[in-house]
Amino acid sequence: MAKSIEQRVRELEDRDEIKELTARYCWHVARGESEAVANLFTDDGVLDVTNADFKPVRGREALLKFYRASVREPEAALPFIQNHVIELSGDDARGTCAIEARFARNGESVTAAGYYEDKYRRERGRWRFAERKLFFHHVVPLKQGWAEAKGRSRKA
Amino acid sequence: MAKSIEQRVRELEDRDEIKELTARYCWHVARGESEAVANLFTDDGVLDVTNADFKPVRGREALLKFYRASVREPEAALPFIQNHVIELSGDDARGTCAIEARFARNGESVTAAGYYEDKYRRERGRWRFAERKLFFHHVVPLKQGWAEAKGRSRKA
Amino acid sequence: MAKSIEQRVRELEDRDEIKELTARYCWHVARGESEAVANLFTDDGVLDVTNADFKPVRGREALLKFYRASVREPEAALPFIQNHVIELSGDDARGTCAIEARFARNGESVTAAGYYEDKYRRERGRWRFAERKLFFHHVVPLKQGWAEAKGRSRKA
Repeated sequence: MAKSIEQRVRELEDRDEIKELTARYCWHVARGESEAVANLFTDDGVLDVTNADFKPVRGREALLKFYRASVREPEAALPFIQNHVIELSGDDARGTCAIEARFARNGESVTAAGYYEDKYRRERGRWRFAERKLFFHHVVPLKQGWAEAKGRSRKA
Repeated sequence: MAKSIEQRVRELEDRDEIKELTARYCWHVARGESEAVANLFTDDGVLDVTNADFKPVRGREALLKFYRASVREPEAALPFIQNHVIELSGDDARGTCAIEARFARNGESVTAAGYYEDKYRRERGRWRFAERKLFFHHVVPLKQGWAEAKGRSRKA
Repeated sequence: MAKSIEQRVRELEDRDEIKELTARYCWHVARGESEAVANLFTDDGVLDVTNADFKPVRGREALLKFYRASVREPEAALPFIQNHVIELSGDDARGTCAIEARFARNGESVTAAGYYEDKYRRERGRWRFAERKLFFHHVVPLKQGWAEAKGRSRKA
C-alpha cells in the first residue's frame, strides 16, 4: 500500500532527526560534555567498541559512568560523521555511518577512521541511540599512519 | 498547534537548502571564487574568525574585499563540513557544523579542525549566512599534529 | 507553476536517496565489495578518474571488471563524502560532492582530497550513478603532505 504524504513527511523528518542525533553526539564529545552524550541514548542503550578489549556498556547509569570517565576534557576527541545510511521501521531504525576522528593522547596526535552500526529508537518523543557498535579501521599516531593497521575492524 | 504538512515540508526544504549553503561555501572556497563566497552572505552578513587576531568583517562590501584578498587561489584551502545541527525559526535559523580543512601555506601542508556557529536568514528568496563565527580547535602543520594545540577554540 | 506537495515530498525523498547512494558507494568500497559498487551505476554508467592516466570505464560489464580489479580488499580505500550539492530534474539529477580518502598502498599511508561531478538517474526504481567524474586535488603520502601537489585537479 502506498504511503500517505503524512507518513512520507514523517519519515523525512525522522531521517533528519537521526542525522542530527549523530551530529549532536559529536558536538558533545568535542566539548567534553559527558552527561549530554549519555542522554542521547535510550534508557536501556548500549555502547560497544568492538575492536578494543571493551565490555559493552549497558543502560543509562552505566553509560553516564562510562562517559563521565572517558569524555572529560574538551577537544580530547574530535569525531566527524559521514556516509550515513538509515533504514526506518516505525519508531525503530538502523543505520551505519563512517567516522573520522582526531584524538590527543598523552601529548600525541592520533588519527582514527571507522564506522558505527547503530540502532535508533524513538523514546519520550525523540530519536535516541538504542545501540552503537563502533568498529575502528585504525586508531594510530598521525606520525605513523594507518597502512600497517589494516584489518583491525574485524571483530576478534 | 500542530504544524501543517505544508509547513513541515517547507521546513524540510529549508534544512536541505541550509545544508547546501554550507556545502556551496566550501566549493567556492576550494575553487578560489571569492565573489561567489561573499554572495552567500546577507547584505549585512558578518564573518568572525574567533581565535585569530581577527576583526569581524561586516557587510557585503567588506566581505567582498575580505574574500578577494583571502580566497584567491584554487586549492589553497579545502574545507569539509560535517555534523550539522540546524534550528529553524521562520525565515531565520541557527546552526552549528564541524569543519576539517586542508591548507597549503608557504609550501607547507596545514591541517585544521573547528566548528562554525552560524546564523542563517532567508533574503531575496534564498537562505544566506547572516553570521558565521568560526572557532578553530587547531590549525597546525600536518607534520607537527594537533596534540599540543588543544584549547585554541576558547575565545580569549 | 507552484509545485504540488506530492512533488516537493518526492524531491526531498530523491535528494535523501541520492545522498545515500554516495554513502553506499563509500561503504562498499571500504568493505572491498566490488560487485555492490558496480551495481550502484546505471546499465550504461560511466566512471572517469580525470587526473590519472585513466580511460573512462563505460557500462555495467566494464564497471564490474574494473571494480573487481580495483576494489578487492577491505580497508584498502576508505572514502568519506561531504559538501553535497544536488540539482534535480525529474528522473535525472546532477550533483557535486567532496571526498577525503585514506588509502593503504604498498604499506604506505596515502591521503587524498578531491571532488566528484556526478550525474544520477532513476533506473529500475532506484537512483543510480549515470556518471561519476572524480577530480583529485591531491593523492599523496601522509608523510609528505599536500602542499606541493596543488593544482592536480585541473584536467590536462
